[in-house]
Amino acid sequence: MEQVLSDNLVISIDAMGGDNSPRVVIEGLAMAAHKNPDAKFLLFGDEPKVRELLQNYPALQKVCEVRHAPEVVRNEDKPSAVIRNRNTSMFMAINAVKQGEAQAVVSAGNTGALMAISKLTLKTIQKIHRPAIVTIMPHRTGRYVMLDLGANTECDSLNLSEFALMGNIFARHALGIERPRVALLNIGAEEMKGREEIHEAAKIIRRARLDIDFIGYIEPHEIPEGKADVIVTDGFTGNIALKSIEGTAKLVVRLMKDAVKKSFIAKLGIPFMFGVGLSIKKAMDPRLYNGAMLVGLNGLTVKSHGGTDALGYSVAVENAVTLIRQNFVSSIREELENVDLDALSEEILYDSY
Amino acid sequence: MEQVLSDNLVISIDAMGGDNSPRVVIEGLAMAAHKNPDAKFLLFGDEPKVRELLQNYPALQKVCEVRHAPEVVRNEDKPSAVIRNRNTSMFMAINAVKQGEAQAVVSAGNTGALMAISKLTLKTIQKIHRPAIVTIMPHRTGRYVMLDLGANTECDSLNLSEFALMGNIFARHALGIERPRVALLNIGAEEMKGREEIHEAAKIIRRARLDIDFIGYIEPHEIPEGKADVIVTDGFTGNIALKSIEGTAKLVVRLMKDAVKKSFIAKLGIPFMFGVGLSIKKAMDPRLYNGAMLVGLNGLTVKSHGGTDALGYSVAVENAVTLIRQNFVSSIREELENVDLDALSEEILYDSY
Repeated sequence: MEQVLSDNLVISIDAMGGDNSPRVVIEGLAMAAHKNPDAKFLLFGDEPKVRELLQNYPALQKVCEVRHAPEVVRNEDKPSAVIRNRNTSMFMAINAVKQGEAQAVVSAGNTGALMAISKLTLKTIQKIHRPAIVTIMPHRTGRYVMLDLGANTECDSLNLSEFALMGNIFARHALGIERPRVALLNIGAEEMKGREEIHEAAKIIRRARLDIDFIGYIEPHEIPEGKADVIVTDGFTGNIALKSIEGTAKLVVRLMKDAVKKSFIAKLGIPFMFGVGLSIKKAMDPRLYNGAMLVGLNGLTVKSHGGTDALGYSVAVENAVTLIRQNFVSSIREELENVDLDALSEEILYDSY
Repeated sequence: MEQVLSDNLVISIDAMGGDNSPRVVIEGLAMAAHKNPDAKFLLFGDEPKVRELLQNYPALQKVCEVRHAPEVVRNEDKPSAVIRNRNTSMFMAINAVKQGEAQAVVSAGNTGALMAISKLTLKTIQKIHRPAIVTIMPHRTGRYVMLDLGANTECDSLNLSEFALMGNIFARHALGIERPRVALLNIGAEEMKGREEIHEAAKIIRRARLDIDFIGYIEPHEIPEGKADVIVTDGFTGNIALKSIEGTAKLVVRLMKDAVKKSFIAKLGIPFMFGVGLSIKKAMDPRLYNGAMLVGLNGLTVKSHGGTDALGYSVAVENAVTLIRQNFVSSIREELENVDLDALSEEILYDSY
């Protein structure tokens, strides 16, 4: 199976992360492999278990290489406790990216550990100060990306500008939008509203003359309308917005179900509404939006939801495949070649005195 | 009409604020007055116009005193431009609270100006450093309050602790919850997650031995489940969460409507679902949650949505009535008598060295 790794599209897999690993991982890989016959997978985990499962998927087996990892990062492990343990399936999977054996790593394991080990091992791309977590979300008529969702609880204007740059490339590659509309998340449209670092980031992005369709500020209630393709914010605010959106979507669906249950007449209408229910369920199916990506590092780390099923896992893997195909990491490096955001940031800082 | 003002429950009204003022204001007042026959109103605005409208509501007329205000704060006015103009209906209405003629002011006008003039005129309660904007929101089985929603884009741990104290009293009075569960909005349940000022605020609230059922951190997706009655956060984050929640609720309803429209079969089911639609609409009717209140000042300022109708306006007025009846402002003062949050805050600051 040596020739597997000589090919271009290789994804490293932490086969032990997630609630029902390695079963869900292998099932998900089988789905992703079927759609992407040129992708190869480098699996790290309990070798006998993984090999046994692979026997059920002969086509997948042909594009997989399995390496034994003696240990596993558990969900309750603190990142600091496992960050230097080189024997876990998570560490080994990330390290394969560092060694150039794979271009991306996918794990459904401990988020904190995955982010910490990725940062330490893969390091940020030159000229990028902080990596960001980005994900794809549905709006009324399409999809958008939002970053940062939690890698950095505090961000300065320079960090935000870098997120705008990376988010723009991400949306182009992952969503196929030629010229994404990029916006900074804020609590008002006016120049003076919100926090200072947001105002400064707007200035940096405008002055950097990046090839970005920067449309200014966006307020959270405008996001579902599809007003922007890339939403840029700090990790604390992004996490708050993301969880508010997810929680409310669930609440509304719940309220409807509760109301239908209480009404005899509504129950009679259920058969008519079956298709609508299905289409809403599909539009908001969290499995179709599975995969939070850590961007800004020399390599791509994809975090799958720990409790997802094979379909959800396959979506996370396919996100990785798409971004590798488009040379996402190289695109960021190229974009940065002719920009000096650091200098611009200082310039704007002096301006305010 | 002199005896009007000698009574206890007097609310000052900016009759000119809002999209269809003073018509909607008077209609809303008529509804609120009907439910609260002991409330009196002190109206500021275009006297002839207001008097003419009042003639349609003889019962309301009896509990109103009208004073002429020669000018109006417009929505496009910058707060700084109108803050010292004593001739606007907004300024005069707020000033009536300062003069002790009323205990609360209601306005549907320019939010920024209303907040700025209120702060300048009414001043913060002694020992409270910053006022906060609070509102009432629906969760799955009841209601909760959240603050701050935008009065302060940056907050330190002391501000957050004060918001917890005020929010607790607010929920007791406005929602009638005897022992509200108070939580700090954060991006994780663990002690270490999120921002430093949140960790410190948790320490201050715990050590202050306030009469508060403080339940620790809450994440945004837990809010709709009704896990807490009071959500405490800074004004930037609160505004982001609020607008994310509102935007998503609208999106989900919109998606359902779109899906029903597209399906012939679903259209046949509409009559059965009519009741469900109505009950959802009622549960989330923004008019029933109208009224953002600025708390922490010597007096209460209630901001009604500018575009609301008479029902919405009456809800804002009734919120004011309820809080005055319960002596909301005095309750905050009493609660503060035996607490020194300032000292605690310094103590905790020293602890971290």
